[in-house]
Amino acid sequence: MTATPKLIRGNLIWNKEKTALTTCERGWIYIESGVIRAILSPEEGETIAQRGVAVEDYGERILIPGLVDLHVHAPQYAFRGTGMDLELLDWLEAYTFPEESRYDDSDYGERAYTQFADGLKNSPTTRACIFATIHVPATLRLMELLEERGLGAYVGKVSMDRDCPDSLRETEGISALRDWLTRWKESPLVCPILTPRFVPSCTEELLEGLGTLQREFRLPVQSHLSENPAEVELVKALCPEAETYGHAYARHGLFGGEGCPTIMAHCVYSSPKEIELLEKNQVFVAHCPQSNANLASGIAPVREYLRRGIPVGLGTDVAAGHSLSMFRAVTDAIQVSKLRWRLVDPKLPPLSFPEALWLATRGGGAFFGQVGLLAPGFDCDLLVLDDHDLPAPRKLSLEERLERLFYLGGDQTVFAKYVRGRRVK
Amino acid sequence: MTATPKLIRGNLIWNKEKTALTTCERGWIYIESGVIRAILSPEEGETIAQRGVAVEDYGERILIPGLVDLHVHAPQYAFRGTGMDLELLDWLEAYTFPEESRYDDSDYGERAYTQFADGLKNSPTTRACIFATIHVPATLRLMELLEERGLGAYVGKVSMDRDCPDSLRETEGISALRDWLTRWKESPLVCPILTPRFVPSCTEELLEGLGTLQREFRLPVQSHLSENPAEVELVKALCPEAETYGHAYARHGLFGGEGCPTIMAHCVYSSPKEIELLEKNQVFVAHCPQSNANLASGIAPVREYLRRGIPVGLGTDVAAGHSLSMFRAVTDAIQVSKLRWRLVDPKLPPLSFPEALWLATRGGGAFFGQVGLLAPGFDCDLLVLDDHDLPAPRKLSLEERLERLFYLGGDQTVFAKYVRGRRVK
Repeated sequence: MTATPKLIRGNLIWNKEKTALTTCERGWIYIESGVIRAILSPEEGETIAQRGVAVEDYGERILIPGLVDLHVHAPQYAFRGTGMDLELLDWLEAYTFPEESRYDDSDYGERAYTQFADGLKNSPTTRACIFATIHVPATLRLMELLEERGLGAYVGKVSMDRDCPDSLRETEGISALRDWLTRWKESPLVCPILTPRFVPSCTEELLEGLGTLQREFRLPVQSHLSENPAEVELVKALCPEAETYGHAYARHGLFGGEGCPTIMAHCVYSSPKEIELLEKNQVFVAHCPQSNANLASGIAPVREYLRRGIPVGLGTDVAAGHSLSMFRAVTDAIQVSKLRWRLVDPKLPPLSFPEALWLATRGGGAFFGQVGLLAPGFDCDLLVLDDHDLPAPRKLSLEERLERLFYLGGDQTVFAKYVRGRRVK
Repeated sequence: MTATPKLIRGNLIWNKEKTALTTCERGWIYIESGVIRAILSPEEGETIAQRGVAVEDYGERILIPGLVDLHVHAPQYAFRGTGMDLELLDWLEAYTFPEESRYDDSDYGERAYTQFADGLKNSPTTRACIFATIHVPATLRLMELLEERGLGAYVGKVSMDRDCPDSLRETEGISALRDWLTRWKESPLVCPILTPRFVPSCTEELLEGLGTLQREFRLPVQSHLSENPAEVELVKALCPEAETYGHAYARHGLFGGEGCPTIMAHCVYSSPKEIELLEKNQVFVAHCPQSNANLASGIAPVREYLRRGIPVGLGTDVAAGHSLSMFRAVTDAIQVSKLRWRLVDPKLPPLSFPEALWLATRGGGAFFGQVGLLAPGFDCDLLVLDDHDLPAPRKLSLEERLERLFYLGGDQTVFAKYVRGRRVK
């Protein structure tokens, strides 16, 4: 990040509103210290460029805010796209826990996390909220790898101490977390986040300790909530005194509210009481449509969350989601919302493309602060998209080009990528 | 295609059974005149290779039968990935009919169909059942373009004469079809297929004429069936005397049975009576999961069709499906089957990866004859898949590599492709 002002030019598209796209053909973004100072029309930008401000001109390419992955498991990247035949609890036992156990070996961690960090760098994601494993050294290394690549991330050393293999059981309690927090240096873009795996994996003592730590360090929190019917039943049996699954976090101060920004992934089976609490505490819902299909979990009522003003973003949830691409998260969110409307609840209309794009930009970006819009005061997180590999027999509008890029494009369409004003791809 | 025998070597995987994968590490395929004569173990193949038979060795790459796209609209390729906000009937009017009208202009057709044919050539599809438009010259040109690329296809000049723009209304009745059939030369791999668009677009007279032509030329038939609730209601209103939508085709001899191989796309809302007729007449169901999500149609009960022994294959249904990739059709079929199991009918278990692969190979391949297996007597339709761009931190099994290729791979993983023994990519 440099304080020197800069102009970036191209075809700008973003969500000034949640439900509609704003476009600015051959517009300019004026940035300083990594922050957007102004969005300028072609004429306005020309005038400033003539004053000698540095220009990066991307021609007819499309510039949009960077995409935010609100839920992804770095250690599971290694087996993404395999083992897609089980539901959540069996899938954790058969595939996930054995894989995560390997990260005790730092050579394996180095190899696997380098592949993950490179994958994320090449993807359309600029910021991500990431689960690591319980292992402190591997988690610290993952954070370094992300920082080296200039990506923005919250990374969580996972906390878990019951109903899991011994190799993944936290034996040192909260002290391992303190160790991790102490050893991570300050970093402008990569920060720690408290990460209880989910209620079934955490004893009351562990959750209590996490709550204490949260209040001491004012750290954000991420976890899973009401993903699968069997999981919801399990939590009921484990915590009979908690009113809902969400309350089992909330009673330890790990469920949003003042000074405790929190993300809960999935929320497919949240009861009315739980939804009330999500709303009251302004907990972020990480909607993970691909994962919810692959593990036969179901489809979350995103439209209802949006209507209630609950903050919502999208997550790939690799490796229950097989693809690290947020393009897929956007189009999958639209597709499953259509199926939910048709098969479950005709009162909740499907998501439109602008709405799903909003979820992936400003929706999740809000967890990171002033992120996810092309507007003054916002971090300059940008994707430069190139669709020359997607021929068409006639001229398409900017909006058509963008929709097509999301439906058809892979990492190769991400020509350049900026995080807080710095080009990282 | 050459009569000279040849050996092709690599890691072979296919469905000897519908529900399980068979693998042969570093196996050999012995072919002659484009047809597989034998599948050979490493040792058996070595012996024959030493006799001087030509060898194409693909090393550690994976070889599987070619994928069959049982339902795709060539003229819609031009707008794939755009306009994903409407249901079927409105979508046809707003996007599809205006686009298809352009194919009256042969320059446009040339440009657009060349892009489609190149797209299909680069994709994992070896054979396809294709809808063109009503226009004879453009349809003939499409057939040539496919033939030049060595692909296998049934191509249909579309028949429609009601409830559509004038520019797409067949005015010459059956004589235009005769003209088309007469002008298409014999071709070993690209053949005509009768293609009434769907009942709402066809008068009784047109369907009657198509039935007569079918019996005269013994041509196969393709159309759409019970895709969307509003469409099903419309057909009820248009054909009150037909017992089901399917019967509206059947009474003209356009719905399977002896000497009339037929594909019906979708079958999402087929009633028990219609399903009985599909079974009795052994009509092929082209299951198009991506399309059915994009147009909010629903999810077809594929498991039920398989249990009844109804022939089923997969279709991309571009452009209601946005992706031309049969990899996506396979993984989408698995995903929506899981959602259907969860949300609609717990008595119909989801599709497994081997089952979905079977649908895309032998399932659809059966429409083309001896196609879709690695077995003696079958056409040598092959994909050579390369996964070196998909790194993993540890060694994966062949089955894991293949599953991952389908979930994560794009066209670039199709290293080579054979149709009836001839390398076409």
